[in-house]
Amino acid sequence: MTANSVDGDVTFPAVEAPDEEVRRQAVARHERLTKPAGSLGRLEELGIWVAACQGACPPRPFTRPRVVVFAGDHGIAAHGVSAYPSEVTGQMVANFLTGGAAVNVLASAAGATVRVVDISVNADTPERVAGFKVRRGSGSIDREDALTDAEVRAAITAGRRIVDEEVDGGADLLVAGDMGIGNTTPSSVLIATLTGAEPVAVVGRGTGVDDNGWMRKTAAIRDALRRARKVSGDPVALLRTAGGADIAAIAGFLAQAAVRRTPVVLDGVVAGAAAAVAEEMAPGARRWWVAGHRSAEPAHAMALDHLRLEPLLDLGMRLGEGSGAVAALPLVVMAARVLAEMATFDDAGVSGPA
Amino acid sequence: MTANSVDGDVTFPAVEAPDEEVRRQAVARHERLTKPAGSLGRLEELGIWVAACQGACPPRPFTRPRVVVFAGDHGIAAHGVSAYPSEVTGQMVANFLTGGAAVNVLASAAGATVRVVDISVNADTPERVAGFKVRRGSGSIDREDALTDAEVRAAITAGRRIVDEEVDGGADLLVAGDMGIGNTTPSSVLIATLTGAEPVAVVGRGTGVDDNGWMRKTAAIRDALRRARKVSGDPVALLRTAGGADIAAIAGFLAQAAVRRTPVVLDGVVAGAAAAVAEEMAPGARRWWVAGHRSAEPAHAMALDHLRLEPLLDLGMRLGEGSGAVAALPLVVMAARVLAEMATFDDAGVSGPA
Repeated sequence: MTANSVDGDVTFPAVEAPDEEVRRQAVARHERLTKPAGSLGRLEELGIWVAACQGACPPRPFTRPRVVVFAGDHGIAAHGVSAYPSEVTGQMVANFLTGGAAVNVLASAAGATVRVVDISVNADTPERVAGFKVRRGSGSIDREDALTDAEVRAAITAGRRIVDEEVDGGADLLVAGDMGIGNTTPSSVLIATLTGAEPVAVVGRGTGVDDNGWMRKTAAIRDALRRARKVSGDPVALLRTAGGADIAAIAGFLAQAAVRRTPVVLDGVVAGAAAAVAEEMAPGARRWWVAGHRSAEPAHAMALDHLRLEPLLDLGMRLGEGSGAVAALPLVVMAARVLAEMATFDDAGVSGPA
Repeated sequence: MTANSVDGDVTFPAVEAPDEEVRRQAVARHERLTKPAGSLGRLEELGIWVAACQGACPPRPFTRPRVVVFAGDHGIAAHGVSAYPSEVTGQMVANFLTGGAAVNVLASAAGATVRVVDISVNADTPERVAGFKVRRGSGSIDREDALTDAEVRAAITAGRRIVDEEVDGGADLLVAGDMGIGNTTPSSVLIATLTGAEPVAVVGRGTGVDDNGWMRKTAAIRDALRRARKVSGDPVALLRTAGGADIAAIAGFLAQAAVRRTPVVLDGVVAGAAAAVAEEMAPGARRWWVAGHRSAEPAHAMALDHLRLEPLLDLGMRLGEGSGAVAALPLVVMAARVLAEMATFDDAGVSGPA
């Protein structure tokens, strides 16, 4: 168990918008490519967004799409809100390291690499993944704060530093994944707090909890929500009260990606909750994110609506790990390549509309 | 202009189902992989389907996904139903050959290769793509049959032979693309005929026709539909009356893929129309197809409902060429790889549900 010492400043600089002039160039370029204008639908918008994020039209091919999986446990899991025991979180860290988890296989197929980071696993993990560890398990948010003030700042800072490391190392497209038994409970609370939703509207089955577990989860969300609403206007306090170290780190990661002008593909409900908080910490960060998918968790759709993000996929996925974002990653890659590589009407000698 | 001489027999043998025993093995394998059962949603079903099609669990990696673009013109295009002039069809054949079209770029990103076949382009095309050419342009279906009886049989046979060539050459996943100015008009007529829909319910904007063109297209569909309904019970006669050589070839291709036990990712409205007819020619063929996407053409959604196929993507695409299917191809590849490559709970030492 380690804790990063930080000076405690988690203020983000103003987030700039993706390049508007390049966006206009990309729109104009799409109109010259050998297809009816708009006929590739979302793929066109997506390519234009990539170009604007990169500040380059035609956009560059992605060279280092990178997935960072944030692992952390949650005290609430001891109160019967999940189908799985907490020991699974640490076991899955080992599974990520040997490449056996879903996100490893999906990332390999999508041309991305995976890094796993233990932020708050309630077990010892290999040293190479524990450098940013904040604590063992976050508090049980129905009755106590998830984190201390120093811990929430350390967690947000961890996410920021990881983005800096990755972007400095060449990452040009980022995904934040999550792994933690019980993590849909704090995610649902954060989303309910920021959207004003009632507990029963946000509670989902998570990894597949049964009816009794669903009732316990609903009660836990109700109790945590009562505590969270008192700090709804302060995103750092909200993460401290009702989030967790993993979610705080993901929020820091998503905000810092925007600061570093690096596009992000968002995953499901945990990333969605972190994103909703990150947008409060760094307004405008959402313009650097695309929603990879809509998960089966009801709170996720609310988070996406709140962020005004339209998901690329809707396949009933509900695993986390970044899996839904990585499943959508080939669409982002394709969208950029289409804009960069297709022939123009002039190049190909193809006639335009009659 | 060439015409293939065939004996005229376009009867398909009975289509077998994908392997039910392997399907059960794949379902059981998915339950042992290190994730909550069902948590990958459609990706799980898709991997199970691939395994059943291959008759192998775990499924084999795809080695030769192959896109065949069927190019053909339509007499109806001379009557103002499209935004583009017919000369574009031949120009786009050249564009496919030099790799500048959307489907070339998408296929390259998805690990597939593209073949283009001139079935009925109203222009001369390079000899290497014209070996299956049936005629120059199909008839204007609002007033005459699209094809003669010999031509429709030659076109269906062309699609069958192309599948045989491709599967014998190692293709293990197939996509049929289309290129032809005016081709959404016959497609809409075929779908309306087989689903009982009215002309105004099926007519769409195609490549982007204006309001006057939309009215001309609706009238053309109405007139063609009147002719088509007389032969609605005979799929070959229907393709002859209201289809076209390209669509007939795609129908033969889709039916023969099922006969050859080779999975297909379906594209948009033209493939959807051909698929609806192919299912009539070879009942059960639909079990070998997955719908890559739902296009913006209203008739496409009707065709998918009719075939009871749920699309993987819904991105407002409306280009054709196989582009929507190829955009979905990485999902099929990922689904197969997840089922084949993920660790099991036993392998990874991960605990199951509490």
